[in-house]
Amino acid sequence: MTQNIYDDEAFFQGYSQLNRSVNGLDGAPEWPALNAMLPDVRGAKVVDLGCGYGWFCRNVCEQGATHVLGLDVSEKMLNKARSMTSDPAIEYRREDLEQLQLPAENYSLAYSSLTLHYIQALPELFATVYQSLLPGGHFVFSAEHPIFTTPSQPGWIIGKNGEKTWPINGYQQEGKRITDWFAPGVIKQHRKLATYINLLIGAGFIITRLDEWGPSDEQLATTPALSEETERPMMFLLVAQKPR
Amino acid sequence: MTQNIYDDEAFFQGYSQLNRSVNGLDGAPEWPALNAMLPDVRGAKVVDLGCGYGWFCRNVCEQGATHVLGLDVSEKMLNKARSMTSDPAIEYRREDLEQLQLPAENYSLAYSSLTLHYIQALPELFATVYQSLLPGGHFVFSAEHPIFTTPSQPGWIIGKNGEKTWPINGYQQEGKRITDWFAPGVIKQHRKLATYINLLIGAGFIITRLDEWGPSDEQLATTPALSEETERPMMFLLVAQKPR
Repeated sequence: MTQNIYDDEAFFQGYSQLNRSVNGLDGAPEWPALNAMLPDVRGAKVVDLGCGYGWFCRNVCEQGATHVLGLDVSEKMLNKARSMTSDPAIEYRREDLEQLQLPAENYSLAYSSLTLHYIQALPELFATVYQSLLPGGHFVFSAEHPIFTTPSQPGWIIGKNGEKTWPINGYQQEGKRITDWFAPGVIKQHRKLATYINLLIGAGFIITRLDEWGPSDEQLATTPALSEETERPMMFLLVAQKPR
Repeated sequence: MTQNIYDDEAFFQGYSQLNRSVNGLDGAPEWPALNAMLPDVRGAKVVDLGCGYGWFCRNVCEQGATHVLGLDVSEKMLNKARSMTSDPAIEYRREDLEQLQLPAENYSLAYSSLTLHYIQALPELFATVYQSLLPGGHFVFSAEHPIFTTPSQPGWIIGKNGEKTWPINGYQQEGKRITDWFAPGVIKQHRKLATYINLLIGAGFIITRLDEWGPSDEQLATTPALSEETERPMMFLLVAQKPR
């Protein structure tokens, strides 16, 4: 089972203060880019892998999705999500994504935000997602970028003039990385971009878009603190499609 | 026109000492991986973008290609290449890849080794390659990895215990990078992996394989100096296919 750090009390308290927790999609700087990569969801059945507070599930229902299944390993996250909607089109279910099963050819869209870098059994999960999609269906996700996950000692080096560099090592060594983030010992899986892409292709997907995300000029103007995100990508966004 | 640094005398002298210049494909540690990504070339017409000394052109002829066009901007490289073969199946031609034109639906394989990171007009070149390929044809190339090209001050940081890290910055700022490599002022183009991939998709290609190359265990055993290549990828290898 994936480490369920989100049910750690200290982690949950810290995480719940994040802008993306308080303000939802509008608090996530990558959301405009990710949203622009989504297909039309009117009339669609959607599954969200790692739904957290359910911001995305509620959003796609407002956009016209007819059924949304939100999955998460964290009971705390799901309870919070359930408290924020009474829409019968949304179903929240506790699932360990390491062992997920989904009905065949059922969804038009599978979505996942910043979750897949926790998953060990990624080939199995990609196969599960693929068979659950209708022909022509889309898999749209964000995950932490390998540049962000690879360092054994992640952090900025600040130069004499305040310039920031991000030192990386161990890029070829895929697997577990342990960091302290709201709680000690958070376990993530470092994978090369090539591995994500080749696993998707191997599952049958066609890669249709990749975004090694960085802030827009408008975002930099209104939120100067985002400028460090121009130095190295923290996450990537990807669209894969099941052939028609 | 692309900077023709390969005709700079000091650069050429330095470059000609490289293991990959002296020993050809067998002197390039990524060759086994790149070779394994190539389609069967028996009976194929092949174009090599940035052929250098022509090692690849001669190799695919030995493998059964019926015609190979080797293109390079460097007269010195082409003269060396011409001196190494009398095979009438190989044609070498001086071309500025920034303005390349190729006949339509003519080649089964387009190949390029460590050349595309010099090119400014990459969307135009990808469109040229695409239309020059037969349906089902392959475009296989290596290029310097954006992790390698992005730093304003590329180089290793050596830690107290000899551990190496590679500090990156400016990842989102695509475009010119100037480094000293055998000669001062070598101009390369930094592009995100996402940009290469989206440009290929935009040209009509299907991405079929990506390798952020690193040495194999066998290579590390025989050539321990390659170990730094496990810390960050210096190059990536990619296969794209024109739909049938």
